[in-house]
Amino acid sequence: MTVGVFDHPVLAGLLGDESLYELFTVEAELAAMLAFEVALAQAQAAFELIPNEAADAIARLPSGFAPDVVLLRQAIGSDGVVIPELVRQWREALGEHAPHVHFGATSQDAIDTGLMLRLKPALSLIAQRLLNLIAELAALKQRHGHVQLMGRTRMQAALPILAGDRIASWQDPLADLDARLRAFRETGLPLQLGGAVGTLEKLGDKAAEIRADVARRLELADHSQWHSQRTVIADLGHLVSLITGSLGKFGQDIALMADNGSVRLSGGGASSAMPHKRNPVKAEVLVTLARFNAVQLSGLHHSLVHEQERSGAAWTLEWMILPQMVVACGGALKLGLDLAQSIESMGDAGH
Amino acid sequence: MTVGVFDHPVLAGLLGDESLYELFTVEAELAAMLAFEVALAQAQAAFELIPNEAADAIARLPSGFAPDVVLLRQAIGSDGVVIPELVRQWREALGEHAPHVHFGATSQDAIDTGLMLRLKPALSLIAQRLLNLIAELAALKQRHGHVQLMGRTRMQAALPILAGDRIASWQDPLADLDARLRAFRETGLPLQLGGAVGTLEKLGDKAAEIRADVARRLELADHSQWHSQRTVIADLGHLVSLITGSLGKFGQDIALMADNGSVRLSGGGASSAMPHKRNPVKAEVLVTLARFNAVQLSGLHHSLVHEQERSGAAWTLEWMILPQMVVACGGALKLGLDLAQSIESMGDAGH
Amino acid sequence: MTVGVFDHPVLAGLLGDESLYELFTVEAELAAMLAFEVALAQAQAAFELIPNEAADAIARLPSGFAPDVVLLRQAIGSDGVVIPELVRQWREALGEHAPHVHFGATSQDAIDTGLMLRLKPALSLIAQRLLNLIAELAALKQRHGHVQLMGRTRMQAALPILAGDRIASWQDPLADLDARLRAFRETGLPLQLGGAVGTLEKLGDKAAEIRADVARRLELADHSQWHSQRTVIADLGHLVSLITGSLGKFGQDIALMADNGSVRLSGGGASSAMPHKRNPVKAEVLVTLARFNAVQLSGLHHSLVHEQERSGAAWTLEWMILPQMVVACGGALKLGLDLAQSIESMGDAGH
Amino acid sequence: MTVGVFDHPVLAGLLGDESLYELFTVEAELAAMLAFEVALAQAQAAFELIPNEAADAIARLPSGFAPDVVLLRQAIGSDGVVIPELVRQWREALGEHAPHVHFGATSQDAIDTGLMLRLKPALSLIAQRLLNLIAELAALKQRHGHVQLMGRTRMQAALPILAGDRIASWQDPLADLDARLRAFRETGLPLQLGGAVGTLEKLGDKAAEIRADVARRLELADHSQWHSQRTVIADLGHLVSLITGSLGKFGQDIALMADNGSVRLSGGGASSAMPHKRNPVKAEVLVTLARFNAVQLSGLHHSLVHEQERSGAAWTLEWMILPQMVVACGGALKLGLDLAQSIESMGDAGH
Repeated sequence: MTVGVFDHPVLAGLLGDESLYELFTVEAELAAMLAFEVALAQAQAAFELIPNEAADAIARLPSGFAPDVVLLRQAIGSDGVVIPELVRQWREALGEHAPHVHFGATSQDAIDTGLMLRLKPALSLIAQRLLNLIAELAALKQRHGHVQLMGRTRMQAALPILAGDRIASWQDPLADLDARLRAFRETGLPLQLGGAVGTLEKLGDKAAEIRADVARRLELADHSQWHSQRTVIADLGHLVSLITGSLGKFGQDIALMADNGSVRLSGGGASSAMPHKRNPVKAEVLVTLARFNAVQLSGLHHSLVHEQERSGAAWTLEWMILPQMVVACGGALKLGLDLAQSIESMGDAGH
Repeated sequence: MTVGVFDHPVLAGLLGDESLYELFTVEAELAAMLAFEVALAQAQAAFELIPNEAADAIARLPSGFAPDVVLLRQAIGSDGVVIPELVRQWREALGEHAPHVHFGATSQDAIDTGLMLRLKPALSLIAQRLLNLIAELAALKQRHGHVQLMGRTRMQAALPILAGDRIASWQDPLADLDARLRAFRETGLPLQLGGAVGTLEKLGDKAAEIRADVARRLELADHSQWHSQRTVIADLGHLVSLITGSLGKFGQDIALMADNGSVRLSGGGASSAMPHKRNPVKAEVLVTLARFNAVQLSGLHHSLVHEQERSGAAWTLEWMILPQMVVACGGALKLGLDLAQSIESMGDAGH
Repeated sequence: MTVGVFDHPVLAGLLGDESLYELFTVEAELAAMLAFEVALAQAQAAFELIPNEAADAIARLPSGFAPDVVLLRQAIGSDGVVIPELVRQWREALGEHAPHVHFGATSQDAIDTGLMLRLKPALSLIAQRLLNLIAELAALKQRHGHVQLMGRTRMQAALPILAGDRIASWQDPLADLDARLRAFRETGLPLQLGGAVGTLEKLGDKAAEIRADVARRLELADHSQWHSQRTVIADLGHLVSLITGSLGKFGQDIALMADNGSVRLSGGGASSAMPHKRNPVKAEVLVTLARFNAVQLSGLHHSLVHEQERSGAAWTLEWMILPQMVVACGGALKLGLDLAQSIESMGDAGH
Repeated sequence: MTVGVFDHPVLAGLLGDESLYELFTVEAELAAMLAFEVALAQAQAAFELIPNEAADAIARLPSGFAPDVVLLRQAIGSDGVVIPELVRQWREALGEHAPHVHFGATSQDAIDTGLMLRLKPALSLIAQRLLNLIAELAALKQRHGHVQLMGRTRMQAALPILAGDRIASWQDPLADLDARLRAFRETGLPLQLGGAVGTLEKLGDKAAEIRADVARRLELADHSQWHSQRTVIADLGHLVSLITGSLGKFGQDIALMADNGSVRLSGGGASSAMPHKRNPVKAEVLVTLARFNAVQLSGLHHSLVHEQERSGAAWTLEWMILPQMVVACGGALKLGLDLAQSIESMGDAGH
């Protein structure tokens, strides 16, 4: 139970997204960070920086290791990051091989890379839903696109258009965003590996090769360290906010059409005071989620002002904002699909 | 486990606030909404709108009734609000008295009033912590206020001041905010009671008296319905953001003093790569929380554009933002107190 | 001509506010800063810190002195503030009395106080317009308040209300804001006087009395220095944004009523493509201005994180945002009055 | 003179950018809109929708026509856009050919396309400055990159790095943004041409060919109408905010280095109270401009919620925000170049 709506036992039924949300649980986060350490150790063994036995022992951790979350929670209060205590627990579990885990890495390497490892499936899910919604809008155009609709500009009846013209204004930006999302995923989300101050000073002259090898093992893009260069975070926020914003236009249009009677929706929300009503709830919530992400994005751009080799202040702000934006985008896509499917008829005939 | 940081099993150790968070659990929310219904029924019985037996039965609900949260979660997806299904469950539990619960009220009456009933203890807790922090800063001034410190303007050494001068710049705004918070609490948080469209059309000529009676029973301020007039929400957000913002200045100053060696802190954060470091984690996080609330506040001001008699879109946005802001404020006050207590010495002597 | 809309030779006809705008011209700004220096010199002479002749010479500056704006523009590029070069120009004009102008003061004293001296008439104008609009809405209620209107919640017809009920939802928050604006003006806008690092170190043991005397001469509230404590700036932004936000609700309602035909407006905007249309332009722009200020307010809360004794970064951000917010509020009040006056009829009768 | 800082007679010396600003004057705007009408008429003549004589007469307008700005200012107050009155003035100047100007087009076609025609040179200028700054940072690396610098993470000394490592953290994001800006310019800024409701209903079966021809004549990308699909506006805002944000990190680092003495700057700002100081003014202002754009971007994402075939409210908000963001970006690039050039030495040697 939470002050956040996305996993609120009740509100999540309206605003949540279980599939995406699972990627942001503490279990998923700890597993992703350990996956990074395994790949790092294997790459370092391949380049003979650490013994193969150590790499093997580290590679076995995911199957056996159970983190002490209570200690992690206590430690983060003073450390500001989970890694120092988590490394201590990993080392405790590794016995003789302890010195070789997290070798030459720093908190930000594990945390930022662990985030990218979870954003990959998140973007895949978002891309899939985007395709489903685009297909559903195409079907909607088939069903109702030929109906005449009064085109409305500046909140006034203008000239007649076809329902298909308005549906296209919902569909076209999503098709464009689908292409951009695909491009984003092909470029690949970047590995973060820089060491204490971004210079990989402990990996010696093999640093670049090792980093490339870790990236290959994790199926992330090899990238020079971005400790203090956060455009990738702002780009991700921008992309998901473009999706929620485009869905917000769809929701706003449907809500206005419900208001003036030019759309009929199946289902729709009950009122505790007026049982006769059918509220365009999903359409309204699409507007809510669009405005929510429009507000949040500002915070990610403030985090670009990331001082020196690492900023605790700017970095922690990303943690508070980006996951919420991603889940809000996923929830909006779910609601958008439901809403498109619930459209029984369009057009001013009713008037 | 959550995408939100405030109840994240690990991150909450850094950013969370258990005492405030409890006020925003679904249990607390459902209990507060039921408390509203009880007071409404008792007032309506007192004015002979419903039978005393019904009011008594409703008053017994809190002790016996157990909501079916799964059904609530399903229903909110289509209704957009929890109340229609919750009223159905209440009525099922009330048997013959069913028709008398939620009589003449609407979703927004129960939800907005339920929020105010939880914000009351939240503001009390915030006020108490504010007093503790002010006292701690006064003690800090006693301990170190006489030490000379180089005053710094525009990131440059300017002229010598006393540490006490800078401590006062942290303390004075908090003292002012304490006074404003007290004034806010004395005016009282407002009852929301308007009925379906804000006209209390079902309460007849006794409407105003009944509303005043409900307010008295709930120890809230009697106020004409504010369904679509949301300045009170924006005011609450502004107030908590002023507190986190003032603490952000404190945190930024301490972080800069840690950077240039003019403060020594006990404890402080460990680094996974550099065990020798002691990071001013709490100071940094105060800056994070200040910027977080500065970002969020914008959303509450967008929600002032609340169309017609009730906006689903603008209202739902409040749910996503205000609770997070309140808990961020509570967490900042906790961190601020810890930080003030951790200051072992101030001054440029070390240089 | 400008990238800003408020004094754009054409756009200002829609979004500008000449009366308020004049308070933010460079002439008004330079005059206000000089008024501060005159009051400071007179108070210092009264307390025998500087010669009476010097105070008299400084008091004569406003009538004769013409600043060299080109030099000011050049100097600010390196100084970041206008005062050093402006003081040089004042001193040049003062001859023998040169050393006595700006004595014991710093840039922020002149600039912040100069801003408060202009915000006073700005708030008076805003308060006057607020009263006019409240009166106009009362008259509107007289004219059309009795008409039946379909109450609409969540973008759906709900239950019938009176037009007067909806008009009250526009009027009530403005009446509340009028009371708060009056309280704000009675408390008084604060004098800023702190000297180089906020300690008035050059004014000796008379510092507090001199500051009080300067405040009295300028009809500002005496206040301990707020160099680095910026809640007053955030409060001003919050107040004007509450006004524009409340007017945004009014505008959104009228735009929706124009969309569904339940209001008739005189005038209204022409379309280059559809001469038959009458767009609810002023209603739409009220929504625009509400969202504009909702966005801007966030920046003023970021400026609360004002490091050390003076932050160039946070302070300059206030200059970029607050004046625009104040003028946007003034423009919204003008448009709101025009819009209220343009309402010819309300009600669903037309349907 | 203005409430905006960018063309403030004094503040523009610190925050302004004359070259970019000229692209946003009313003259530039009216000229760009007329250029659109000329290309439209020529394309329509080529496709025999209007007489060649009419197209020739319209093509001669730019040389002779002088708009009556006072009338434009009056008209926009009721029309909400400048085009209806501007078209009237054009037609008055065209005599017999009057009916053929703006044929089949609407306000948004002229205004959005007119904006894109001015953003083209704006982005060219920004791209050129970006290259100059990248080159200057490369030179800085040559000069001082070998110097040892204490790497600082979370506001604490961490491990030694080279000054070149930190310079790279300023340079690398700019190189990436240069590539993206080039890609953006190659794709081309989009023509907007849709007619009254986006369907080009008056251009008949030649509509698509005519639109492509207009795009070719204006050297813009041919694009289906984006009346109500505003991702391109949000993308432009995101891109310029990424640039200012990356420069904000540079400025923040230099300001902190000035604070702890690890950089020496030539020039630097004077203080009216402390002549001995040299404030890192340009570094601070880079932080200011980064936060300004981080705040503004939120507004452009709210404008994605663009209702029906055209929203006056969402569209007008773009006019208030995007030009300011572009000029803030240009000013930041100028300041960034000055700041890089002013770096006389780096390194902790001084300590």
